[in-house]
Amino acid sequence: MENYFAERMNILRASDIREILKITQRPEVISFAGGLPAPEFFPSREIAEVACRVLEREGTRALQYSTTEGHAPLRAQIAARMNAKCGTQLSPDEILMTTGSQQGLDLIGKIFLDRDDVVVCESPTYLGAVMAFNTFRPRWIEIPTDENGMDVRALETALGRERNVKLIYVVPNFQNPSGRTWSLERRKELLALAVRHDIPVVEDNPYGELRFAGEPIPAIQSMDTTGMVISLGTLSKIFCPGLRVGWIAARRRFLDKLVIVKQGADLHSSTFDQMVASEYLASYSIDENIRRILVAYRARRDVMVKALELEMPEGVRFSRPKGGLFLWVELPEGIDARELLPRCLKRDVAFVPGGSFFPARNRDNTLRLNFSNMPEDRIVEGIRRLSAVLREMMAEHSRHHDIAPETTTAM
Amino acid sequence: MENYFAERMNILRASDIREILKITQRPEVISFAGGLPAPEFFPSREIAEVACRVLEREGTRALQYSTTEGHAPLRAQIAARMNAKCGTQLSPDEILMTTGSQQGLDLIGKIFLDRDDVVVCESPTYLGAVMAFNTFRPRWIEIPTDENGMDVRALETALGRERNVKLIYVVPNFQNPSGRTWSLERRKELLALAVRHDIPVVEDNPYGELRFAGEPIPAIQSMDTTGMVISLGTLSKIFCPGLRVGWIAARRRFLDKLVIVKQGADLHSSTFDQMVASEYLASYSIDENIRRILVAYRARRDVMVKALELEMPEGVRFSRPKGGLFLWVELPEGIDARELLPRCLKRDVAFVPGGSFFPARNRDNTLRLNFSNMPEDRIVEGIRRLSAVLREMMAEHSRHHDIAPETTTAM
Repeated sequence: MENYFAERMNILRASDIREILKITQRPEVISFAGGLPAPEFFPSREIAEVACRVLEREGTRALQYSTTEGHAPLRAQIAARMNAKCGTQLSPDEILMTTGSQQGLDLIGKIFLDRDDVVVCESPTYLGAVMAFNTFRPRWIEIPTDENGMDVRALETALGRERNVKLIYVVPNFQNPSGRTWSLERRKELLALAVRHDIPVVEDNPYGELRFAGEPIPAIQSMDTTGMVISLGTLSKIFCPGLRVGWIAARRRFLDKLVIVKQGADLHSSTFDQMVASEYLASYSIDENIRRILVAYRARRDVMVKALELEMPEGVRFSRPKGGLFLWVELPEGIDARELLPRCLKRDVAFVPGGSFFPARNRDNTLRLNFSNMPEDRIVEGIRRLSAVLREMMAEHSRHHDIAPETTTAM
Repeated sequence: MENYFAERMNILRASDIREILKITQRPEVISFAGGLPAPEFFPSREIAEVACRVLEREGTRALQYSTTEGHAPLRAQIAARMNAKCGTQLSPDEILMTTGSQQGLDLIGKIFLDRDDVVVCESPTYLGAVMAFNTFRPRWIEIPTDENGMDVRALETALGRERNVKLIYVVPNFQNPSGRTWSLERRKELLALAVRHDIPVVEDNPYGELRFAGEPIPAIQSMDTTGMVISLGTLSKIFCPGLRVGWIAARRRFLDKLVIVKQGADLHSSTFDQMVASEYLASYSIDENIRRILVAYRARRDVMVKALELEMPEGVRFSRPKGGLFLWVELPEGIDARELLPRCLKRDVAFVPGGSFFPARNRDNTLRLNFSNMPEDRIVEGIRRLSAVLREMMAEHSRHHDIAPETTTAM
């Protein structure tokens, strides 16, 4: 037997981001490529303190096997926090703790997706969801998405046309990669369509609490009286990602199945990490920590937006997100961000070409910039270099194709 | 759509063990049901100390996202330890850190198994592997297994007859559930057959270091020059399970694929837990900790074996394992351990009926006893109650069927 592997391995491959991150380990690289939170806001002193307290007070429990559902006090804290922040009415037994919210995607793929089932998503969509769901070999239908969310007419058409739609996957707040946030109107329309077609909605919400401007918009799950919405949350962006504390919030008809597949996937998530997170939430104000993060991220976003406005050539459009970690750039048609990347890397600047975020079709003239993980002066310098390389490339392209660049329209 | 779920959900269900464990939470229950290590040997004081040191010295790193492969110093420590203890020649980049070794099973299932592919296993086999692999809907072929391991003639016949055998799954040391250990001879024969048929072998080894008696037998992976053996390891039984630190050791042709699916499964395992484990291994002697565990487990096994010899009725056979956590009991034909269990639970004694450990066929007259997690006096009392209930049930059964019990043969 030459090929030992399952058929799915023909389509699964390492993420582009991962490969880029490997290249950008050198400290001189100005990296807008990752999605890393700023480590200076990890509460490491407080974590050391609560870790010691947990081990002293209940060490044998913290180090022992525990239930698949997760640490009961933490599930209660998460439910209470979601109810307060997102307007949901969840009970603690509707929370399943996961090894980061990435695992939530894997478990959801497992319980819902057979080969050739359809997943409907935003265009572009989160690469990690594409990777997790592709294990189960679905077809993807991308729905055009604008500043206010999915084009619900296009969604309606797709749901009317396609059989076998098993999931609608959305990131309604400060989406990765686009930075976009759905309006209340669109959320309601999506929910109504999903309920009418009886299709579960996965509301992935890692960035909802990272809002710098404007008012929070209710979660889709908070408006759902039918139990069709399954939401994913995580402490990675508001506490720290190294502990891998994520969760799924769903009605028991879905959660019971998710618990079964989680058991096969890793028995349970780290007992110790869950108890440390729980003790931190009980002892400190995570809201205080979030406020400190927001001050820094808002400043970094402002600096990046200003630098882009100053430096970018005509024909380039970019988003101005009100929260989250990412900003989305659309280059003129015909400029391939995959060709831009190696030229930028030579000048020690990194980003992620946008093509990977389109599971069904490619739009190679796009790229994702992360603004949370670089200090302000390096953001300015990085955007300067990126813009210079892009200008060179556009000039060559224009000589080559003899086409005038498009007019600038800032998104 | 009434049924939202993937087809696989028709066959996946919560493990019996899990359901039993829920019932046995009451402190008055004498539980031989779980596979829990004895918590009094968790080095919680030392873990508190190294956790603080890790956070003080490299807090931002310990709390940040990290590579899918795992914490590099820990991978090097694991490779070195395996090479010393198991006789392998692994390099650090042949180690992938996993969220417990249960995750290793999920990842292996993902890369190898399409629907109706065949997994060959011991009879009985580890329930967690059945649950993990069943997600990918293989067929199982159980090979008869005796005190020295698989019947290799039966294995040879099966490999000659079956197309599509994708994996051979074995637990060669102190197997869960049987407590059996493979002889060197059988390990060599298995490897030769696997190499001849070009089929990867999964050598799951959570209990290898828990040997109370006799000499260690070389790992199958240590004799493999072809790279066909993939091994799974864990710190759960020799350090603590709450941190979920496991690993897969394999050649890069397999490991590269495992890394891709791990990325989709949870991005990476807890950075903090991995760094705590690494710092513990660097600062303390885990061998010293294992020696303390072995003294207690040997005494508990002795007490359980002696109690079984004294109390069990004629016709009952049981194993006398030289290590690990489990002892296997075969009841007379016709006595169903699933009927025995509720009667024992009424007298506050729990165990796991053996039927779940046979993925292809059931042998309901078997049960698994755990001896690591109860103090000696409770083991004696628990076996006394179990034997009394069994004797009653056998008497009823014999009246009912008018069949004399078999002759006693201790395994």
